[in-house]
Amino acid sequence: MPDLLIQGATILTMNENRETLAPGYLAVEGNAISALGPGEPPPEIQAAKKVMDGSGKLLIPGLVNAHTHLAMTLFRGYADDMPLMDWLEKKIWPVEMGLKAEDVYWGAMLGAVEMIASGTTCFNDMYHFFEATARAVADSGIRSCLSGVLLGFLPNAEERMERAIDFVAEWRGAAGGRINVMLGPHAPYTCPDWSLEKIARAASELGVGIHIHLSETRKEVEESLQTRGKTPVAHLEGLGLFQNRVLAAHCVHVTDEDIAILAERRVGVAHNPGSNMKLASGVAPVPKMLKRGVMVGLGTDGAASNNNLDMLEEMRLAALLHKLEGGDPTLLPAYQALEMATRGSARALGLADEIGSLEPGKKADLVLLDMMQPHLWPPHSMVSHLVYAARSSDVDTVVIDGKVVMEGRRFTEIDLGYVLARARETAERLVGVRGGLAAR
Amino acid sequence: MPDLLIQGATILTMNENRETLAPGYLAVEGNAISALGPGEPPPEIQAAKKVMDGSGKLLIPGLVNAHTHLAMTLFRGYADDMPLMDWLEKKIWPVEMGLKAEDVYWGAMLGAVEMIASGTTCFNDMYHFFEATARAVADSGIRSCLSGVLLGFLPNAEERMERAIDFVAEWRGAAGGRINVMLGPHAPYTCPDWSLEKIARAASELGVGIHIHLSETRKEVEESLQTRGKTPVAHLEGLGLFQNRVLAAHCVHVTDEDIAILAERRVGVAHNPGSNMKLASGVAPVPKMLKRGVMVGLGTDGAASNNNLDMLEEMRLAALLHKLEGGDPTLLPAYQALEMATRGSARALGLADEIGSLEPGKKADLVLLDMMQPHLWPPHSMVSHLVYAARSSDVDTVVIDGKVVMEGRRFTEIDLGYVLARARETAERLVGVRGGLAAR
Repeated sequence: MPDLLIQGATILTMNENRETLAPGYLAVEGNAISALGPGEPPPEIQAAKKVMDGSGKLLIPGLVNAHTHLAMTLFRGYADDMPLMDWLEKKIWPVEMGLKAEDVYWGAMLGAVEMIASGTTCFNDMYHFFEATARAVADSGIRSCLSGVLLGFLPNAEERMERAIDFVAEWRGAAGGRINVMLGPHAPYTCPDWSLEKIARAASELGVGIHIHLSETRKEVEESLQTRGKTPVAHLEGLGLFQNRVLAAHCVHVTDEDIAILAERRVGVAHNPGSNMKLASGVAPVPKMLKRGVMVGLGTDGAASNNNLDMLEEMRLAALLHKLEGGDPTLLPAYQALEMATRGSARALGLADEIGSLEPGKKADLVLLDMMQPHLWPPHSMVSHLVYAARSSDVDTVVIDGKVVMEGRRFTEIDLGYVLARARETAERLVGVRGGLAAR
Repeated sequence: MPDLLIQGATILTMNENRETLAPGYLAVEGNAISALGPGEPPPEIQAAKKVMDGSGKLLIPGLVNAHTHLAMTLFRGYADDMPLMDWLEKKIWPVEMGLKAEDVYWGAMLGAVEMIASGTTCFNDMYHFFEATARAVADSGIRSCLSGVLLGFLPNAEERMERAIDFVAEWRGAAGGRINVMLGPHAPYTCPDWSLEKIARAASELGVGIHIHLSETRKEVEESLQTRGKTPVAHLEGLGLFQNRVLAAHCVHVTDEDIAILAERRVGVAHNPGSNMKLASGVAPVPKMLKRGVMVGLGTDGAASNNNLDMLEEMRLAALLHKLEGGDPTLLPAYQALEMATRGSARALGLADEIGSLEPGKKADLVLLDMMQPHLWPPHSMVSHLVYAARSSDVDTVVIDGKVVMEGRRFTEIDLGYVLARARETAERLVGVRGGLAAR
């Protein structure tokens, strides 16, 4: 008997055949999808422990955020509209110096509730105090891939690296498998070669992936060419980093040769259109990367440079941006954008066997959206509406690892008011009371 | 005694001094703002007929959508990701041929409820069967500036022009002043010179403005240069059109000389970043236009090319797009984007004496947003959150012309279910059942 049955929904399976069931049913047993199909569920499935009516709703796989810094929700709106280095050096890094594990926990909890409420069921993180983020993952019910940020130039870099390696061993598969792990060297320009080589070896030995920022700004690439005579991508290739599974965030300024390397080495790329636009970093050649077989997923980057963790918005930005950039309204059509945010991110993170599509045996990470809304009407096309017109508040119900974490827009277990209060308190202690909102 | 008092809200007045009241109060008498100020309301105001608690909420002037084709909501998601001319010739124009006034009424009602629910209180429209849109404005409670679309090359162009002129006289100031009117020649490339000259004369005689598409695509400008040796802007200047008040939509491909003309002639420009991206039209030089004193407002364009009527999204797109385009993250900061969507659009439409900011004597077009949401937390900056992180579902309560049309996200008088049913029926009759959503 299934634990959960959703019936009557329009289902975008996001499987390889791009199947849509309209309507269809989906059954969950334990933490996995046990069955799905078109029309009415067969009799043996109808007696599920919990039945949800999906009529008027769209069922999709949970969205997968391929690159973020979760606890940076604490700094959302703290400083905007500034040049990147001013923003980092004068605003973000000084306040990050004062961070404690408890602060990161509340920032991560805030980020987790925001993500769940907007239909994201798995995220790939890189930040300080990874244990704190891991605790927030365990407590909130979300799925994750976590890496501590490793900055090779810090005096205690080696010690941090050892701790990161311990973390990987300790937390791998924790929270019932909802915690996946990677090693997180920040970027080629902040990590000297010895540290990247050490990380590559450790990743090989542990059999885990590597999460790194790569070719985000023109300046990064120019400096790499000047000092090494190589692009950052070619540099990492030369160091042997890509012999591991790698998730490279951004890849904005990549050459055709870079793209060939990324494709051949099966490097996952996290595209972050919102952050790249807000920080004026540039436009990643996503249509070209997809065409050449690079595994491209979609991410929000941190809330301090986005300023939200809204994957529906990110899909739309991607779809609009590449049409404009390529001067061609047929580029990155709606389905491809949705694919990038689901299957694409899952593949880029090496998690495609578990998540990213609705198929029997995959984890039950599910999102039901209420499509009976003026801005999604008339219901001509669910895929078009999702990518070009929906907003994340249309997410009605979220299931992660078989558990209903939000239903009818209410969290089933998380105390939202408490999370908001603690996060505000934490943020204001770190950056001072900014007085933006009248007290309630 | 005020009819309505909102107290305890954070208020962005959007007045010339960029005043914020945190907290503040605002009182409404009849259809106008009678008083506002910081802190607690004075005693004579406290005894209002209706009092709203604004704590935890942000109060802003209603958003003003400077360019749309309202009833095109009927074709939302009907055809996407196509080259512009294919889309128009194979999809949109054929179905528009079958339109009747009643169809336009239900499309416009659908658009009106979508706009109200997303914080837009006034819109500038150009479409067929303007009387039907006017009826929807009257019935829905929204404020508008309406123009019928005039296509100079049609066989019955002169007759339509006469009807449009009658419409202007008949409907001007209707619905208690909520209906403003303009004449709507579609574009320089669809209206021969004789028709533009005739419209310019009629507009002068009636003392009304002109709403026109201008320099939207590169092709339009190239053809104008080839056939006339002038840009479309210079062409309209030569015809004397700009001696009237003009709202020009798009202005994507404009030269420095064009911008000088637009500034000098006080032409209002409607910037439509979502549509310009989706159709790959290009990027309007908005920061430059603003710097040179052009009155730039913000619009969504029609829902068939956007695909929603969401002005919060449009603000964000504008703020992100121009940072990217200019390679400078300080361009079009949050406040300026918000200004464009409020004061800017009001000025561009010639309605700045009535709407666009919260000041005593102006119309009571008000939007209250619920800011106590994970994605708007912590409350470091209300302006940043509104532009970079909010979604239009954060709009909680909307007042138009002193009347509460939505409160706590519920329409006070509009029967949403009925509007959805009639709009769907209408759309499916026009384009067929697309079968996107399982029936409820």
